[in-house]
Amino acid sequence: MTSVVILGSGIMGSALAVPLSDNGHDIRLVGTFLDREIIDSVKATGVHPGLKLKLPEQVRPYQLEDAEEAFDGAEICLSGVNSYGVRWAGEQLARLLRADMLVISIAKGLAADDEGNLRILPEVLAEPVPSQVRARVGWAAITGPSIAGEVAVRHDTCVVFASRDQDVADRLADLFRTSSYHVWTSTDFVGAEVCAAMKNCYALASGLPEGLLAGMGEADAAYRLYNYEAALFAQGNLEMRRMVELLGGDVSTADGLPAPGDCYVTSRGGRNVKVGHLIGQGLGFTEASAKLGNPTLEGAFAIEVVGRALPKLTERGIVGHEEFPLVRHLYEVVGEEKPVEMPWSRFFGGERQAAIAST
Amino acid sequence: MTSVVILGSGIMGSALAVPLSDNGHDIRLVGTFLDREIIDSVKATGVHPGLKLKLPEQVRPYQLEDAEEAFDGAEICLSGVNSYGVRWAGEQLARLLRADMLVISIAKGLAADDEGNLRILPEVLAEPVPSQVRARVGWAAITGPSIAGEVAVRHDTCVVFASRDQDVADRLADLFRTSSYHVWTSTDFVGAEVCAAMKNCYALASGLPEGLLAGMGEADAAYRLYNYEAALFAQGNLEMRRMVELLGGDVSTADGLPAPGDCYVTSRGGRNVKVGHLIGQGLGFTEASAKLGNPTLEGAFAIEVVGRALPKLTERGIVGHEEFPLVRHLYEVVGEEKPVEMPWSRFFGGERQAAIAST
Repeated sequence: MTSVVILGSGIMGSALAVPLSDNGHDIRLVGTFLDREIIDSVKATGVHPGLKLKLPEQVRPYQLEDAEEAFDGAEICLSGVNSYGVRWAGEQLARLLRADMLVISIAKGLAADDEGNLRILPEVLAEPVPSQVRARVGWAAITGPSIAGEVAVRHDTCVVFASRDQDVADRLADLFRTSSYHVWTSTDFVGAEVCAAMKNCYALASGLPEGLLAGMGEADAAYRLYNYEAALFAQGNLEMRRMVELLGGDVSTADGLPAPGDCYVTSRGGRNVKVGHLIGQGLGFTEASAKLGNPTLEGAFAIEVVGRALPKLTERGIVGHEEFPLVRHLYEVVGEEKPVEMPWSRFFGGERQAAIAST
Repeated sequence: MTSVVILGSGIMGSALAVPLSDNGHDIRLVGTFLDREIIDSVKATGVHPGLKLKLPEQVRPYQLEDAEEAFDGAEICLSGVNSYGVRWAGEQLARLLRADMLVISIAKGLAADDEGNLRILPEVLAEPVPSQVRARVGWAAITGPSIAGEVAVRHDTCVVFASRDQDVADRLADLFRTSSYHVWTSTDFVGAEVCAAMKNCYALASGLPEGLLAGMGEADAAYRLYNYEAALFAQGNLEMRRMVELLGGDVSTADGLPAPGDCYVTSRGGRNVKVGHLIGQGLGFTEASAKLGNPTLEGAFAIEVVGRALPKLTERGIVGHEEFPLVRHLYEVVGEEKPVEMPWSRFFGGERQAAIAST
């Protein structure tokens, strides 16, 4: 039995208590300052209000002020905050982590500095942790197609645990792996995290075509825009591959679960797809987001980060101006509220190029 | 203006008359022996009964017995038959083709010999054509995500025209390319055709999880099997890549439109997905196919061809026994009517391998 503390009681972090409890681990679930009602509910009835399910008996809920108690004796920390909360979570870890713990994160996104240099979120998470502790902690992340509720009800799920240290990935995989939660490992931390982040951009894009149809008054048309949607998916796949390469990852990481797999499931629905749908209908991003109650939109967030970084990287000669035409256009749409006008001829290396080239 | 004869008046061949007519070409549409009623309808009213649309005015319909007249002076032949009809179509071309014509095919599948050697369908199509003509004809194929009806109503569609000869691909692309039918070219004829064929196998697989849910009495469950479906998609992507490599194609062809793009759109629906859905519910393949009226099922056909070839290739030491676990299981389900039991731990190079490996 291993003691695992989950920091952040959103649906994904909380759902992962299920495979952990199936393996008999001791689980402490700590809410963030936004999670007070979730923890109250788990304390009162065991039910997670987001998942609408009773969490396993072994889960002990803690409010944030009791985090030190929750971390006492814990060997593993699952960082369950999303990309908006990573810096905050890092600040908590700075006071709560001890050397020799393992940290596994679920946040999906990228961060950029003023020069447009992009980096993966586990680096942002680790940054506030004092260097002597940070160096002795094993850092990892979960990527791959994983809808939280399906994990919580033990539907088959295949994920990749990525860490620079194979031993860290293996130890974590052993803790989580069950007969329905299937875990592979990878030492391509950068590649896996880049895919996890970028796929949210393209999932938002996948909502556009249905919205465009609705906007044309063809919401019930026999012939949809599936070819359109599939072309965006394919272009997104190429851009994910290129971004992995650009940030120094192993491009083969983008062949399976972290890129096409995760992008496929994320394109099946959710808030990013819904906001894409509203934008397709003609709403500006701000209006579309407001209509959904201004939820967390990791896809829009990633589009803004990457879309602002790319021109800087191009100006510095690091990225060709013809590269990433889809995510650049998504930034025009989401960040600058320009209308959707797909630059088809710039996709797939350029329509009138002699042969297919990457991105 | 170029004269184009379309051999086979199914929905895809007929839909391609739209971009051709938009470019002002002369189009002769020849029905196969199965298409008599389609041609009668086009002759009488202009309406294609499968597409439920009026074809462009320029399209001249011909019954099969008038094929020689239709081929008279034609420079291009679009072979519009599906994978079941390729050998038959080749026999027609043997008498109808003239040297210096270009042939572009839409059939998606693979053929195998008794030793399990796989080859692409354009080779089967060309085989009956006398060698002196065959050598002087330019052969090509269309791959990528392309639902026929969407092409016919001019919804944006991105495809790849593949040919061993760049000039052939370029000439054909110029004939078809419009402001909504976007055409890229590739000289990786083998790689593009392998993706086109294999993706139908995985599209059938994508129907299984919803069927499994329905079979468990959970057709309306809040939590679906999307993680399951996405994992199959990812594994399918890896197997497509490996098959491209095995048959001597360029694996980068599997990065964009021909593999994830086409597999994405094919997984959105259609007969292959429906038969997968019924199998997931517990029906044997024969029963499931009968329930749908025994339609053309290119996915099932491809699964049978590949599923029978793989053990032979493994016995000959060409393919590892651990390779292609998904399509091998699909063959057990479709070809041998065994129950669905996903070999998860064999996917992605093996769950307990040290790190992610290809297939």
